[in-house]
Amino acid sequence: MSTFKPQNPDFVAMIKEKMQGNAFMHFLGFTPEILEAGLVEGKLEIQPHHRQQSGFLHGGVTATLADLVSGWAAFTLVKQGQTVVTVELKTNYLNPATGNRAWAKGYVIKAGSLLTFTESEIYCNNNGIDTLVAKSYGTFATINL
Amino acid sequence: MSTFKPQNPDFVAMIKEKMQGNAFMHFLGFTPEILEAGLVEGKLEIQPHHRQQSGFLHGGVTATLADLVSGWAAFTLVKQGQTVVTVELKTNYLNPATGNRAWAKGYVIKAGSLLTFTESEIYCNNNGIDTLVAKSYGTFATINL
Amino acid sequence: MSTFKPQNPDFVAMIKEKMQGNAFMHFLGFTPEILEAGLVEGKLEIQPHHRQQSGFLHGGVTATLADLVSGWAAFTLVKQGQTVVTVELKTNYLNPATGNRAWAKGYVIKAGSLLTFTESEIYCNNNGIDTLVAKSYGTFATINL
Amino acid sequence: MSTFKPQNPDFVAMIKEKMQGNAFMHFLGFTPEILEAGLVEGKLEIQPHHRQQSGFLHGGVTATLADLVSGWAAFTLVKQGQTVVTVELKTNYLNPATGNRAWAKGYVIKAGSLLTFTESEIYCNNNGIDTLVAKSYGTFATINL
Repeated sequence: MSTFKPQNPDFVAMIKEKMQGNAFMHFLGFTPEILEAGLVEGKLEIQPHHRQQSGFLHGGVTATLADLVSGWAAFTLVKQGQTVVTVELKTNYLNPATGNRAWAKGYVIKAGSLLTFTESEIYCNNNGIDTLVAKSYGTFATINL
Repeated sequence: MSTFKPQNPDFVAMIKEKMQGNAFMHFLGFTPEILEAGLVEGKLEIQPHHRQQSGFLHGGVTATLADLVSGWAAFTLVKQGQTVVTVELKTNYLNPATGNRAWAKGYVIKAGSLLTFTESEIYCNNNGIDTLVAKSYGTFATINL
Repeated sequence: MSTFKPQNPDFVAMIKEKMQGNAFMHFLGFTPEILEAGLVEGKLEIQPHHRQQSGFLHGGVTATLADLVSGWAAFTLVKQGQTVVTVELKTNYLNPATGNRAWAKGYVIKAGSLLTFTESEIYCNNNGIDTLVAKSYGTFATINL
Repeated sequence: MSTFKPQNPDFVAMIKEKMQGNAFMHFLGFTPEILEAGLVEGKLEIQPHHRQQSGFLHGGVTATLADLVSGWAAFTLVKQGQTVVTVELKTNYLNPATGNRAWAKGYVIKAGSLLTFTESEIYCNNNGIDTLVAKSYGTFATINL
C-alpha cells in the first residue's frame, strides 16, 4: 500500500461533513472508524435485516461496504471543491459471511488527476475468527462540484 | 437473450418461498415483478434513505438491485435442492441515478451445471425519462443444499 | 445497441490510419471487417500458436480480441485529435474456444465526454457451430493527443 | 499474501511439462522465472511487435501476462490429474507501459476446491523505473482431466 499525500489538508473535516449527508450509509448502519489519506476503515454490526435467506450477510451489503470504504478512501485525496463518483465496482465473494460484525477496509492503489483505483477488503467474525469474506476493486472519477 | 428451460418446473413457487426469507431485500424495499426462466425484474420506490450525499441513488443500492435480479435469474434455472451463491459481481455506473423509481432487470447469458453468467440493467426515471443508470455483470455458482 | 453519431465524420479513415501502427494487432493476425460508429467487428484465423496446452484458443488472445474491437469501437466516437486508452477490461469465459476461426464484435453502450463503456462478444466456430466463447466489458478514457 | 500448501508435491514438474505445450505463451515470448505454491512470476522482453500505435505495450499483451501468471499460480495448487480454466479476468490499467521489459507476478488470494481467486501485478521499466502498469484480478475453475 503506497503512501499518499492529501491535496486538501482538511480532508478529514471535509469527509465527516459529507458523511453526514450519506443517508444510505446511516440507514445501513455503517460506522467509519479510520480516516487517513488513501485509507478508510469502518464497521457494521450485522443485524438480521442485513442477511439473505440462508443467514449469510447479503452480497448487496458487502458490495455497499466496499463502495463506501473505497469511495471515501478515494475522496481523501481530492482537492477542495471536488468529489468522486463510482465508475465501476467489482466484488469477489471469497467466503460465506456469517458472524455478527463486519469490518471494511478500503485503500487507494493509484490516484490520478482524473481516475482513482482502489481495493477493499471485507472481514466478518465467522465463528469468532476474522475471515476475509470479500475483496473488491473499484474505479472512481474525480469531478468538480 | 437466449431462451432457457427451467430444470425445476415449480421454480416460481420455489423462488417466492426463498424470497420471503431474504431479509435485506425486504429491508431495502425491492419488489419483484417478473419471474421467468432466466429472467427476473422488479422495482424499488426510491426513498430519501436510499440516496447518498449528492441526492443520487447510492451505488450500493444499485449493486444490491443488480445482485438481487441477477441472482434470482440464475436461481430460476437450478434443480430442486440447489441454490446459487454470488461468485463475483461487477457494476458499471453509466449515468447519475435520480428520479424516484428504479427498475431492475436481470437475465442469464450462460447457464452451466456449475457456473451461471448473468447481466443486469438498472433504470431510473430521471426527470421522468427512463434512463439506464447502471449495467452489471455477475457470476454465480450452483451449490447443493 | 444504441445508435451513435460520430463526432469525426472521417472516423473510418482515422481508424484505418491508426490501425496500421498497431503492431500487436498485426502480429496476432486480427483482421478488422466492419467499422461503424460505435461498432467494430473482425476476425482471426486461429493458428496453432494462438492456442494453449489443451488445444483451446488462449484466454489472452480472447482478451486481446475484446480489447481491440471494443477499443476501436470507442475510438469511432471521439473527436479528431483525441484517442482512447483502456481503463479496465473484464472478460467472462463462457465456453471453451475450439474451431479455427474467431469472430469478435465490440460495441459502445455509453459514450461520455470522458469515459466510454463497451461490451464485446467473441465467437468461435466450434465443430462448425458459431459459439459465444466469451463476453467482455470495457471502460475507455478519451484523451487529447 | 497467504502461504499455500500444494496438493501435488511435484507441481513444479507438472507445470513445466504443461508450459511446454502452451504455444501462445511461447509465441508471445513470456519466460517464467519463479514457480512457487500459489505464486508465479516471469518476464517479457518487450519487442516492437508487442506495442500498439502510440508505442505503449498493447493492453492485450498485458492481459495475457496477467492470465498467464495468475492461471499458473492457481495451477500450482491443484491435484495431479486436474487443471484450471479461466472463468473471468479483469485488468485495471494504472499507468502507460513503456520501457523494454515487463515483469509479471501472479498470486492466489483464495484457493477453493472448485474456484480459485487470484491477483496479478504487471510492472514495466518505464524510463528505467519499475512501474506498476496494471493490476489484474482473476477467477479460475478447477476441472478434472
